[in-house]
Amino acid sequence: MASTSEQDIAARYRFACDVAQQAGRLAYDFYQRRQQLAVEHKGGDLQDVVSQADREVEALTRRLIAQRFPQDDFLGEESGGGHAAAPYTWVVDPIDGTACFLNGLHTWCVSIGVIFDGDPVIGVIYDPNHQEMFHARRGGGAFLNHAPINVHPGRSLRDGVMGVGTSHRVTPEEFVPFVSLLLHAGGMFIRSGSGALMTAQVAAGRLIGYYEPHMNAWDSLPGMLLVQEAGGVTNDFLADRGLQKGNVALMANAEIYSQLRELIQQQVK
Amino acid sequence: MASTSEQDIAARYRFACDVAQQAGRLAYDFYQRRQQLAVEHKGGDLQDVVSQADREVEALTRRLIAQRFPQDDFLGEESGGGHAAAPYTWVVDPIDGTACFLNGLHTWCVSIGVIFDGDPVIGVIYDPNHQEMFHARRGGGAFLNHAPINVHPGRSLRDGVMGVGTSHRVTPEEFVPFVSLLLHAGGMFIRSGSGALMTAQVAAGRLIGYYEPHMNAWDSLPGMLLVQEAGGVTNDFLADRGLQKGNVALMANAEIYSQLRELIQQQVK
Repeated sequence: MASTSEQDIAARYRFACDVAQQAGRLAYDFYQRRQQLAVEHKGGDLQDVVSQADREVEALTRRLIAQRFPQDDFLGEESGGGHAAAPYTWVVDPIDGTACFLNGLHTWCVSIGVIFDGDPVIGVIYDPNHQEMFHARRGGGAFLNHAPINVHPGRSLRDGVMGVGTSHRVTPEEFVPFVSLLLHAGGMFIRSGSGALMTAQVAAGRLIGYYEPHMNAWDSLPGMLLVQEAGGVTNDFLADRGLQKGNVALMANAEIYSQLRELIQQQVK
Repeated sequence: MASTSEQDIAARYRFACDVAQQAGRLAYDFYQRRQQLAVEHKGGDLQDVVSQADREVEALTRRLIAQRFPQDDFLGEESGGGHAAAPYTWVVDPIDGTACFLNGLHTWCVSIGVIFDGDPVIGVIYDPNHQEMFHARRGGGAFLNHAPINVHPGRSLRDGVMGVGTSHRVTPEEFVPFVSLLLHAGGMFIRSGSGALMTAQVAAGRLIGYYEPHMNAWDSLPGMLLVQEAGGVTNDFLADRGLQKGNVALMANAEIYSQLRELIQQQVK
């Protein structure tokens, strides 16, 4: 018979997927009507529509979780945690890739994770534009919709495409040399504009790895669990108060991970 | 009454959209079945399936065009032109973004252009994953499906997201400094993996501009006409035998274009 915490985690896992789908549906509805909403309600300001979508999708997520699991803590992009002593913390990015959402690029997602006693145990990333639900539970494997997924089997950076991310939270010098070293190593990269979605694509073997010098917990933790459950490795994101402050994010299969770590060490020389 | 060449161009414009849709449908069918095809027919080799898709989509395009306009020349990624003296040349990239196609990233497209007497007059880019047809005819404006499109109205690089591209046809030093300068200027970029699709997104105002140090004619010319017809400016791609050898590709609205040109001049200092 499963222990109580296993049952509790299983209940939250099913629920996290359900919440991600509802959140994704609401976000997608905003996305499709964003031009019209800007004209009708926001004096033509698309940025305001996006901010409203972000807030409303986070509020929906928070409300659904609070109704079902009132004891759990909630850490979102828009709002910090409340119950510091709770064993379960939900980390939520209602719309990861808001610049894409704003501009009409179809690469954004909903990112939801659950941490139990300091350990990420659930990771769910939902892409409403392509109806792809990436989900994993600690020890239970990683899935895209109903199919199991695995990280890319490549042995060399030439064997696949890297995902990379950056932001104005870091200097160009913390990011650009990595791109140069990757290209010199014969590798190639994409930057889709949604870090969380790219981490999910690492789990699904579509990208050979992902690197970003600074991510926040709500963008990175769900995808990192996905990658681990899909057979890959990641850095220890929660070290150095990563949950609060964010951290570097690196993930790939074990072989590629060590090659990437070498590149990054070269970069900081 | 329209002149003969205007009627001829109009006929090719309608036909180019039709061909792009048929080509896109075939490519998308390969894309959805690529895993299964690899297992069944190619000894598990996905790269072979992608190469087959590329060849078959180009062959379909070439056949359709030759049936309808047998006098026209055809320049594709897989095959060079035949009738050098023909007034009309079709430039075709059956699948732009083959690394995305191979890896299951939904950012690839069909790119078709027509050149009349040395001047690009038709540009069509079809994205089968999102059923978006970007199309333009010289002097007729640019459209996404049935709606007119315009380039991004931004006045500063901070106002939007740049598309960038690179390849191993150029050195990292011809690309990386641009990214650094862009980030230092407060800008941001995506690289989706499909240059042609990003140029179409510039025309649709989703990206503020596009820069790639070297593109081929079949990837760049259709999008460049789209950008011009959407109110933007581009470099003179066909200078220095660009049709044969490829060239740098830069496009944006006039204000952003001049800012980008300055960045690129800084880069080569």
